[in-house]
Amino acid sequence: MAYEPRHMKWWGWGNEDRHFDAHAHPGFWPYAKEVLEIERDDFAERDWKLENVELPEACVDERFLAKLRSFLKPDQISDGAKNRVVHAYGKGFRDLFRLRRGIAAGAPDLVVYAESERDVCLTLRAAAERDVMLIPFGGGSNISGCLERMGSGRTAVSLDMRRKRRVLEVDAPSCTARIEAGAFGPDLEQQLGEHGVTLGHFPDSFLHSTLGGWIATRSAGMQSNKYGKIEDMVMALRMVTPEGVLATRTVPKSSSGIDVNHLCIGSEGTLGVIVEATMRVHLRPEKRVVRGYLFAEFEGGVEAMHECVRQECMPTMVRLNDPDKTALSMAFRPTASSFAKIAGAVFKSYIQARGFALPRACLMLTGFEGGQEAVGRQIAEVEKIYRRCGAVGLGAGAGESFEETKYDFPHIRDFLLDRDVTSDVSETSTVWSNIMPLYRGTMEVLRDSIAESGVRPWTGCHISHTYQTGASVYFTFGFKQQREREMEQYLRVKRAVQQSLVDQGATLSHHHAVGTEHLPWLMEDISPVGVQAVAAIKRGLDPANIMNPGRLTPSADPFREWMRIGQSTTSSPMYFPAKGRAS
Amino acid sequence: MAYEPRHMKWWGWGNEDRHFDAHAHPGFWPYAKEVLEIERDDFAERDWKLENVELPEACVDERFLAKLRSFLKPDQISDGAKNRVVHAYGKGFRDLFRLRRGIAAGAPDLVVYAESERDVCLTLRAAAERDVMLIPFGGGSNISGCLERMGSGRTAVSLDMRRKRRVLEVDAPSCTARIEAGAFGPDLEQQLGEHGVTLGHFPDSFLHSTLGGWIATRSAGMQSNKYGKIEDMVMALRMVTPEGVLATRTVPKSSSGIDVNHLCIGSEGTLGVIVEATMRVHLRPEKRVVRGYLFAEFEGGVEAMHECVRQECMPTMVRLNDPDKTALSMAFRPTASSFAKIAGAVFKSYIQARGFALPRACLMLTGFEGGQEAVGRQIAEVEKIYRRCGAVGLGAGAGESFEETKYDFPHIRDFLLDRDVTSDVSETSTVWSNIMPLYRGTMEVLRDSIAESGVRPWTGCHISHTYQTGASVYFTFGFKQQREREMEQYLRVKRAVQQSLVDQGATLSHHHAVGTEHLPWLMEDISPVGVQAVAAIKRGLDPANIMNPGRLTPSADPFREWMRIGQSTTSSPMYFPAKGRAS
Repeated sequence: MAYEPRHMKWWGWGNEDRHFDAHAHPGFWPYAKEVLEIERDDFAERDWKLENVELPEACVDERFLAKLRSFLKPDQISDGAKNRVVHAYGKGFRDLFRLRRGIAAGAPDLVVYAESERDVCLTLRAAAERDVMLIPFGGGSNISGCLERMGSGRTAVSLDMRRKRRVLEVDAPSCTARIEAGAFGPDLEQQLGEHGVTLGHFPDSFLHSTLGGWIATRSAGMQSNKYGKIEDMVMALRMVTPEGVLATRTVPKSSSGIDVNHLCIGSEGTLGVIVEATMRVHLRPEKRVVRGYLFAEFEGGVEAMHECVRQECMPTMVRLNDPDKTALSMAFRPTASSFAKIAGAVFKSYIQARGFALPRACLMLTGFEGGQEAVGRQIAEVEKIYRRCGAVGLGAGAGESFEETKYDFPHIRDFLLDRDVTSDVSETSTVWSNIMPLYRGTMEVLRDSIAESGVRPWTGCHISHTYQTGASVYFTFGFKQQREREMEQYLRVKRAVQQSLVDQGATLSHHHAVGTEHLPWLMEDISPVGVQAVAAIKRGLDPANIMNPGRLTPSADPFREWMRIGQSTTSSPMYFPAKGRAS
Repeated sequence: MAYEPRHMKWWGWGNEDRHFDAHAHPGFWPYAKEVLEIERDDFAERDWKLENVELPEACVDERFLAKLRSFLKPDQISDGAKNRVVHAYGKGFRDLFRLRRGIAAGAPDLVVYAESERDVCLTLRAAAERDVMLIPFGGGSNISGCLERMGSGRTAVSLDMRRKRRVLEVDAPSCTARIEAGAFGPDLEQQLGEHGVTLGHFPDSFLHSTLGGWIATRSAGMQSNKYGKIEDMVMALRMVTPEGVLATRTVPKSSSGIDVNHLCIGSEGTLGVIVEATMRVHLRPEKRVVRGYLFAEFEGGVEAMHECVRQECMPTMVRLNDPDKTALSMAFRPTASSFAKIAGAVFKSYIQARGFALPRACLMLTGFEGGQEAVGRQIAEVEKIYRRCGAVGLGAGAGESFEETKYDFPHIRDFLLDRDVTSDVSETSTVWSNIMPLYRGTMEVLRDSIAESGVRPWTGCHISHTYQTGASVYFTFGFKQQREREMEQYLRVKRAVQQSLVDQGATLSHHHAVGTEHLPWLMEDISPVGVQAVAAIKRGLDPANIMNPGRLTPSADPFREWMRIGQSTTSSPMYFPAKGRAS
């Protein structure tokens, strides 16, 4: 097989040879130092050595292993240290923080590379026979704690799907494609490209995530305005469960009772392994343009997005940064980019820029796709609305800059972690009437919860993925770590912000899944009976609880468990009362 | 309460004072006689007397009834004959055929009119305590056998939701509306209209069906091209289950694990009672136009629909009739309509019409909605495509005629039943590449299976509800009844056509639900593990199986049961082998 995507570096985002290049983004670190009140600069270059990671001894059920060897080739089974470490976690803050401290308690005992549906079926059967737990693994990019082994005393296997990566069939007239679940973004798009089509799914994690992972977590891509979230694209799928293969038909719509596709979508590996899906695809657009605009204030930008929806002229992509996120974007921009120059000039004439802290201006990135003529019309319609809401066009430069760097953003976190800064995100969606109240309320909660540990908060927000009824609201935050209280700081903030989202009527996540990070709020989001229904499906399809245990069904005291994850990494007490709630 | 929608007549479709007026549609009966080879005309006017219906003795658990009386008002509980008969069935062929023969074996023992969520909760609790089965009832318009009591030996209650009919809340900026599940189409639209919005859901049953029924059966409205199927409109809902209330949040999109809204949508009353839903609504369009076009042949019309989808210029509504359905439409048109005149002239110049059998021409109805200017642009774009595919415009007349009579079509079946003619429908959806093969294959199966009983088949088809990947294909058929073998004839045809749909890769229904009519094919459609998953949810939320038993979980020998429904109405043996299948 020609293509085998590499695993990401175990201590951070992206391939081992890629990292955030501070020289190419000279404005970033000075900006971060200023807003986070960091005074020092003497951070040691770290050399990440696998031998510094404390890997628990692999405890593999021997009869299970013997069974595996009867139907898998030797190179499909690995208990190598690197493989185990790479499969230990996703890329959430807690994941990286622990690995960087040499803690890999979440590591599986074994990694299995499935190459066929049969491999998956037989692995599940063997696991059920020997009470082994299986954690389906795609790109390992999840940041909500979907991949760590939960519970002990059982053999844990990471079931890596990346070798099942082919586009099996394209029905070009019907615009459908049957694709194996382990296909990574670029690989999948390349194969589809040979048929002249695209899936149109470009999440931030695109380079490092798979179709199966997207479906299992209800992912959203940057161009969701045009192509929808992943759940809107699935026409049919095959999911291997401990009870057999759940398989649906490739039809546009149906009325066959409960839509069982939707039992598999978002199941986060708890019911089985998605092995393939038939997806809605699209002819490759003739033209694609991203442009930047500047709004005098956030609310005007939100109003412009909403007005586009009202007038049914929705661009392919929209991303409105709030003032702080705009300042971050400006600081992040590569020196060489034309945007840097253009933006500088426009800003000067448009607002009084003082240093990095552009007072209230908000950058809006907007993408257009389609035929030459249609794109021209879209741009004209959208710009008419934007202008009415007080926007200034920044031309194509800002868009090009975004396009160049759009998959680089996650690298920043590693760079900041190297400098003892915690940064993370929480995202949600809400209806239009609640966007500004939610934004204001959550920003306040974020700032307060960060400030509680005596450090200066940095908070930003962007709005993307617009729908007729609302949009996604995405919060980013960062702060200086307090030595030995890093995890406590993180938990305080994460807890406060998630609670704020659900308290204010939003959902616990728009596209990052539940995992372990959001589990304590699942019951508030989908109601206790909703959770009970999910648990009932789990019991029905996975009676022995071999599939990714500890997800989607919160325990009686979910916060207690939630606090414990990663507890061993801190010496300070992990329990503290959350505001307004009994803990 | 000012508005209380009337029950439909128990022996047919619509209110008691409405029926098919043959004088207003003078072409219809001569057409039917010709195509069905009916020679006589001496059908007696029947006088439908309730006392001729043989109603099984109501067997009500006394302690259950006492409990009901403790929290319901007297007028919320009824065991009156008429109420029981009206709630006995939906409006499927088997339903009407039996009632017209005086058979009401499916009648509930009691009818309860819920007025609040509390009523529903307490009724469910009382039912669970006394092993009573509950069948949620909205408008009673279902034609797939969702409403008949299945099994005996238990008290059966029809839980009528029509008194829970208010629009509770409209968030106009966000375009969402919270609506009680018992609201009928016209009532709901009137209430929404006061806020300037519309749900945009106009199924053929619009006058006689409710929001809760639409959601429970995954209904599709005529304007689904613009507004989507009902499952695309649900943002949140409340469903009372025997385990408590499942309630979700009003957010545009989420990533909270398995989407539990989709467990309720399509649940056909088997998990609980949907009591309210928050729906996506739309500003009322400024303008609405329906136009008619004539295509030289069916395939050209299909190609035109597909091309509209490819070019992303989808009208609000499309409905392409095949040649026989076109002939039926022409025969059905009211004398007074301007369409009758216009169509006549166009037809004369365009094709050689001979009598009612227009050889291959196909009528396409197309609806446009939006602002004045947008509608003009849509029409121009669509007509450009239609013309390229060989269409001739019939102007607004055909559209007006359709608009006038669009909810009258179901009355035809009663008129035909009065004349010993069976007519029914089967509908599905498939991908574009399969539309013509499915059409041809299923038409052949239909004609053969009808001809097997020695009568002349009438078959027609229309295509509507287009999607990027495919469309709905809707078959209509009719034939002369053979005395005392009516049910056998029907079953032979229905079985053949449903088998043909699933054999050819389509789904068992696009918007008519599973009920009892389609249950034997559910396993083929969603796979045995899919059925098992649905059964698991059922066990989890309704452990005592009080909610609408006998649906969504096929028994070990589903065809045997399927054949038995209505068996008592025929003297001939009910078992016959289906082609190519062991029965």
